[in-house]
Amino acid sequence: MIARFRQSLRRAVRHAVLPLLLLLAACGSMPSDTPESALPSWKDGPSRSAILEFVRTVTTTGPDYVAPADRVAVFDNDGTLWAEQPVYFQLQFALDEVRTLAPAHPQWRTQQPFRAVLDNDQAALLKQGEKGLLPIVAATHTGISVEEFGQRVASWTESARHPRTGQPYTAMAYAPMRELLDYLRRHEFKTFIVSGGDGDFMRVFAQKVYGIPPEQVVGSSFVTQYEMRADGPVLLRTPKLEFNDDGPGKPVAINRYIGRRPLLAFGNSDGDLQMLQWTAAGSGKRFAGLVHHTDAQREWAYDRQSHIGRLDKALDEARQRGWTVVDMKTEWSRIYVFETQ
Amino acid sequence: MIARFRQSLRRAVRHAVLPLLLLLAACGSMPSDTPESALPSWKDGPSRSAILEFVRTVTTTGPDYVAPADRVAVFDNDGTLWAEQPVYFQLQFALDEVRTLAPAHPQWRTQQPFRAVLDNDQAALLKQGEKGLLPIVAATHTGISVEEFGQRVASWTESARHPRTGQPYTAMAYAPMRELLDYLRRHEFKTFIVSGGDGDFMRVFAQKVYGIPPEQVVGSSFVTQYEMRADGPVLLRTPKLEFNDDGPGKPVAINRYIGRRPLLAFGNSDGDLQMLQWTAAGSGKRFAGLVHHTDAQREWAYDRQSHIGRLDKALDEARQRGWTVVDMKTEWSRIYVFETQ
Repeated sequence: MIARFRQSLRRAVRHAVLPLLLLLAACGSMPSDTPESALPSWKDGPSRSAILEFVRTVTTTGPDYVAPADRVAVFDNDGTLWAEQPVYFQLQFALDEVRTLAPAHPQWRTQQPFRAVLDNDQAALLKQGEKGLLPIVAATHTGISVEEFGQRVASWTESARHPRTGQPYTAMAYAPMRELLDYLRRHEFKTFIVSGGDGDFMRVFAQKVYGIPPEQVVGSSFVTQYEMRADGPVLLRTPKLEFNDDGPGKPVAINRYIGRRPLLAFGNSDGDLQMLQWTAAGSGKRFAGLVHHTDAQREWAYDRQSHIGRLDKALDEARQRGWTVVDMKTEWSRIYVFETQ
Repeated sequence: MIARFRQSLRRAVRHAVLPLLLLLAACGSMPSDTPESALPSWKDGPSRSAILEFVRTVTTTGPDYVAPADRVAVFDNDGTLWAEQPVYFQLQFALDEVRTLAPAHPQWRTQQPFRAVLDNDQAALLKQGEKGLLPIVAATHTGISVEEFGQRVASWTESARHPRTGQPYTAMAYAPMRELLDYLRRHEFKTFIVSGGDGDFMRVFAQKVYGIPPEQVVGSSFVTQYEMRADGPVLLRTPKLEFNDDGPGKPVAINRYIGRRPLLAFGNSDGDLQMLQWTAAGSGKRFAGLVHHTDAQREWAYDRQSHIGRLDKALDEARQRGWTVVDMKTEWSRIYVFETQ
């Protein structure tokens, strides 16, 4: 009975629906975005216009047309797709994990840099410098299986709240960028994250927050070891950094993971400069964009002097080469996905 | 006029086609393969039955159903998707390249191992051993940009012919495995190559030969450097091996590139053992398969004693754990894609 119903449905599809869809595809692109309805959290302005014009150009028949299979778009994560202040969210995860794991590590009460975290001693923590914080990263990111790490990150994203907004960290994704990801995918772009963050960290929430599946998340990585144990095989995260997906590492990782040059790249800091250069240097039309943090009121305002997300050389090069620099304050009508329109 | 036509088409789609498609999706899977028509180059037998049964189980509503987003299938390349005798095809590329590049390297006429290649001196070449061949790999795979390497591989796949069949190497892909890739994709699996071969080598032909896009090719890699030159940025391939995607490296690479455990894995040698273990150890139904080279007449017959594609431990473990072992001689009605049905 059901089989016969299915069969007749299949026949209907073959005879009526598929030809119609093929005809529609032949007529041009399926997406029904009008220039007015696309990217609703982007105000009319140079960045929104540049994005719409770029996507129109490479998806419309003509000399700059690019086939869907070659429509690759890459995005940095921290400061580009979600906020990164007052500290990178992954560092905040590490600090929170030290507190969570402390009962099992009594020696941390007297041992730096752990003691500074447990005492909430910002001054002592800052004194450690970036290198001094490595034991914290190692203790919270490695020595466990990839599965256990994923569970810990998942549990943190559920419970942790941002100190300024009181929102889950994943709710501090930028609404305009989420719209841009969706818009590109509606135009048959394949969207990737290419970020200095830990790949296994971002994969926990990338699908839900950005609509990006695990295999399209490119990040930094620790050396991982395959071990056969009595109860089965395990992938163990070791404290040795395997790859730092930052600066010149970004185009290298793009080649290694994606295997072709992006059509569009978006970043927000000097760590994205080489990714933008590599993208922009491709033949035909390319798009290189920077999110410029200019909104001290609704987000943060920082660029050349900041220790987090420093934007200096890339800002100069963007101005010089005519890349798109998004002025967050004047060009975004909404910042975070948790805000209502 | 066209705009109005498009608009009415869109309305038709919204009101008639989409609901029908949604209904159809709700009814079950779209693919119209019948058990009789699926995998035409596979004879009726235990392997074909195991594949059909596995795919039916994980794609049909029930306790073992897996959502399309989690349907990941991974395949070794050499000896699994295409032949690997009398030498790995990538090694043949390297040997051919030495001859192509020799005019620019007069010192190779007297320098081993290059001299042995130019003199076609198999005995001297074999005496070098695997390590002795490394200068050949370095000279033909590195010191050039990723673009130039891709062009060289493309040109070789166009011109080179296999010594036994006289066919281009890419025509020596296995027809039954190509059908399996297509069959899995029709059932909404995402198919990946996970191979010891160089990723940038396989990417040149993976789309055309296997229908697998560059970003779904996971392979071994050399350290690549980003350099800004006067005429723009370049990614330079250096002779330092970055990652050997073989043995325990395969589950490590699967985690690093794909970020989740496959539902199905296919290999043909001991280098695939850990990938099969890792896949089979996942929760729910999983599929682990080996191509067993048993056909001395139409292909080659080799396993435990072979230096190329040695299959020994993995064969024992497959028998013990009930993995699928494909008997090429009795289970494949056709071997290569160049053979007519």
